[in-house]
This record gives sequence, structure tokens and C-alpha cells, in this order.
Amino acid sequence: MSILVLGGARSGKSRYAESLAGAEKFYIATAQAFDAEMQARIAAHRAQRGQGWQTFEAPLDVADQLQALDARGRFILIDCLTLWISNLMHAKRDVGAEVEKLCHMLELAKAKVVLVSNEVGQGIVPENALARAFRDQQGFANQRLAQAVDEVVLVVAGLPMVLKKARRKPDSGKTTES
Amino acid sequence: MSILVLGGARSGKSRYAESLAGAEKFYIATAQAFDAEMQARIAAHRAQRGQGWQTFEAPLDVADQLQALDARGRFILIDCLTLWISNLMHAKRDVGAEVEKLCHMLELAKAKVVLVSNEVGQGIVPENALARAFRDQQGFANQRLAQAVDEVVLVVAGLPMVLKKARRKPDSGKTTES
Amino acid sequence: MSILVLGGARSGKSRYAESLAGAEKFYIATAQAFDAEMQARIAAHRAQRGQGWQTFEAPLDVADQLQALDARGRFILIDCLTLWISNLMHAKRDVGAEVEKLCHMLELAKAKVVLVSNEVGQGIVPENALARAFRDQQGFANQRLAQAVDEVVLVVAGLPMVLKKARRKPDSGKTTES
Repeated sequence: MSILVLGGARSGKSRYAESLAGAEKFYIATAQAFDAEMQARIAAHRAQRGQGWQTFEAPLDVADQLQALDARGRFILIDCLTLWISNLMHAKRDVGAEVEKLCHMLELAKAKVVLVSNEVGQGIVPENALARAFRDQQGFANQRLAQAVDEVVLVVAGLPMVLKKARRKPDSGKTTES
Repeated sequence: MSILVLGGARSGKSRYAESLAGAEKFYIATAQAFDAEMQARIAAHRAQRGQGWQTFEAPLDVADQLQALDARGRFILIDCLTLWISNLMHAKRDVGAEVEKLCHMLELAKAKVVLVSNEVGQGIVPENALARAFRDQQGFANQRLAQAVDEVVLVVAGLPMVLKKARRKPDSGKTTES
Repeated sequence: MSILVLGGARSGKSRYAESLAGAEKFYIATAQAFDAEMQARIAAHRAQRGQGWQTFEAPLDVADQLQALDARGRFILIDCLTLWISNLMHAKRDVGAEVEKLCHMLELAKAKVVLVSNEVGQGIVPENALARAFRDQQGFANQRLAQAVDEVVLVVAGLPMVLKKARRKPDSGKTTES
């Protein structure tokens, strides 16, 4: 079971994603504290998250980290894919191939996996070519992951809008896409 | 009864908010005409709004203005919170405390209060640190106000999407959050 | 019958619009390949679209091109209005008048017409005055076209959210706005 939580900056998407957590909570953090602003953002997220989380840092190898944790926990939160894509681009990795690898792991996962990602395409076209390239990669990744997961939610002002809802088959307990 | 109307720039959010008006209409304007572009925007909004509005300017003290008008009118439109937050930041006020004060006034208000605010977080991360700080404050304010009001609507291309809907209790006439 | 498909950059809006196509498919392209980046975007769109499309380039005179094709085909895709508005502004045309002309043609058209446009107003206010002017024109055009068409869909991460849905009158087969 996997859920993609989309939202703009400061939309409440992380808080909403955290509210979906059950017991045995793992947190895969993609952020790296390169400067004071990022350190402050990470500290604020950690304070908001509260107790009961085990945190693992995976700036690049999110799919491998997910695989390693899958057998051990029932709830895994990956926050956020936007920084992950940015990290992959800086490291000259193939973003498309990495997204496919993550989608493959999501299909195999036994845990409930919630992924947080930014919607970044609804502003004006950025003047900066790198920002345009990043926006393209983020948009394609969101589309691909939205196909792969069971549910997709867009968070606006802390309120969820369901974009895709899994339907539970009555006899098998398995979920199918609506 | 309070409604938060969210939307991007030129989404039709003000026009939609105005369409909710009944009789005895008060308008709390947060805009200040510092330059020709803002003067033109204010004049265009005023022309669109049409007759029948009493306008009060409150670039900073929106909660106080709301309190002063609450006993006198049945419909109060506050347009817009985005400029208000920008004004508060320029005046070095504590935005979080001012938002709390407004939320408290909304709970006490007898009038139907409609608040217009921008969704600004769905573009690429701004390169400008002040723009990032503003985006954070706007996002947190939208989340907090969305909790406080009875209804939240997101306007896209002039069309409303309901994010939160008050339910009317059958016996009391009071509204509760859905 | 006309449908406006809105979405951010890389939201999957073109792919969704193409999925609505029936037989006898015409494509009105507003893009002009001024530089290598635009050439690459056009080539990627063309490859995604696949076989069976007849393409017509109309960087400015979209309404005239629509009129010329209307009698000949049953499905006409106009992609995208954002570049069209940008082209009109560069050519010093009156955007509002051109949008009205297109809305008038949409009322007369016999073909199923799908129009793709960007949502560009949900980021931070651009520092560049031309970008702000463009954002205003795009926003007003989206509002006006949303009134004129039968259906409006917002695409996020490839998933459609219906903002306006035509209702079919049982006795006439004609559609009315919901």
C-alpha cells in the first residue's frame, strides 16, 4: 500500500503525511543540512514530527533504503522526493532510472509507504535554465509515481484533495487502482 | 460563518468572493497604492466590485477593523490576506501572532466573513530569500486560517473547488466542521 | 463540444488532452521553434502524440485555423494557449479581443475541440514586470475560456480533476453548463 502526497511549499503536506502513520514508524529523510536555512527547516520538521520515529538519511539511494527497512517496519515515510530529485541532479544520476527503481520497490513493499513530493509547475516559467530542467524532472517524476502508487492526495492549506483512490477488492483484500 | 477563498493570481478568487455577498456589504482593503501598478490593480478591483460596497482600508490592523465593523454589517469581505502578510512583514510585526488574533476575531464574528488569500507555493523555489520567507508565512497563515474558518474554497480559472465544507446541525442551526 | 484542460508545467495535461481524441485528429500547434530548447520540447511532444495526427501551425491565428479545420475533422486539439498568449503579446496583438474571437469560434464549432492551457498563477509574484503582465493575461484568458467551454479539467501529476462538467439535456442531446 503506497500513497503519494503532493502539495506546494508550506501546504501542510508533510504534516498530513505524518498523520497517516501507524506504529513502528520509519522516516527516510532526503534533506542534507548544507546551510543554516536548511538546518532550520530540518529542525522544524523534526520538532513537528514528534516522538516515535526512527530516522534514516538517504539523500540519493532512497529505493535501497526503502528495501532495507521494508521487512522491519509497518509504516515508512519518505520526505521529500523534491530534494531527492535535486540531489540526484547534482550528483549527475539518471533521474528517470532512479524513479523507475523506486516505483519497482513500491510494488514489492509490504509496509505502508507514504511519499511526499512538491507541486512546482504552477508558477511562471523560471528564467533560470537549471530551474526549468528541475521542474521538468519533478513533473515527470510526479506523473510516474502517481501511476505507481495506490493513492494520490493533493494538500492545499493543510486540506487533502483525493486525486486517486485505491479500491479494495472485497474477496482478496488487495487494492486496485480506481 | 466564515469562508476562506484561496486561488492563484488572476484566478477569479476576488470575483468569486464578491459573488457570495448579501446586503450591507463592507469591504476591508489591505492594499496600499504605493505605485502606479498597484493603483491600477486597486482601480480595476473597485470597478469590478460595482456599487453597494463601503470600503475601509486596513493595511495592518485587519482584526481590529473586523471587530469594529462586525456589529454594523451582515457581510464583510477581507481582500486580500497576501498583501496583509506582506504589509505585516514590512512593518516587522509578528505575523503568527496577528494571524492568531484574526482567527480569534473570526470565532466571535456575527457577520458572514469572507477572506481572500493567494496560493503562492506551487511554483519553483524562489532564489530570493525574502520571497522564500514570505512564501513560508503565507503558507502557514493559509493552513491556520483554513482550520479556523467554516469553509475553504480553491478557485481555479474562476471555478470553485470546495476543500472544506461546513455541515449545518439540524437542531441548532450552528455549523460544525466536516 | 469543447473542453479546457488546465495544468502546471509537466503536469501531464497534453497527454491527458490527447487521450480524449477520437478519429480524424487535427492538431493546432502554437509553438514556434526559436531555439534548441523549444525544438526539443516540440519533438518530445510529437513523439508522445504518436501516429494519426495532422498538424497545423498557428502561432497567432488560432481562431481562424480552428474555423478552417472545423468542417474537415471531428477532433481538434489546440496546444497550447499559453504559448499563443505569449506570441500575441510579442506581436502586440490585443489578447482580450483574440480570446473573445476564439470563444466565439468555440460556440460555432461542430468538432470536439480540446484546448490545453497552463496554470501559472500559483507561485510567488514574479519580480519581472513582463512576467507579471503575462501572468495576468493568462489568468484572465483561462477564466474567460472556462466560461465559454462545456467542460474544464485540472490535471495534477497526470490525474484529472473535473472543475466544470457539461450536463446533457435528455430530450435535445445538447449540453448545458453545470
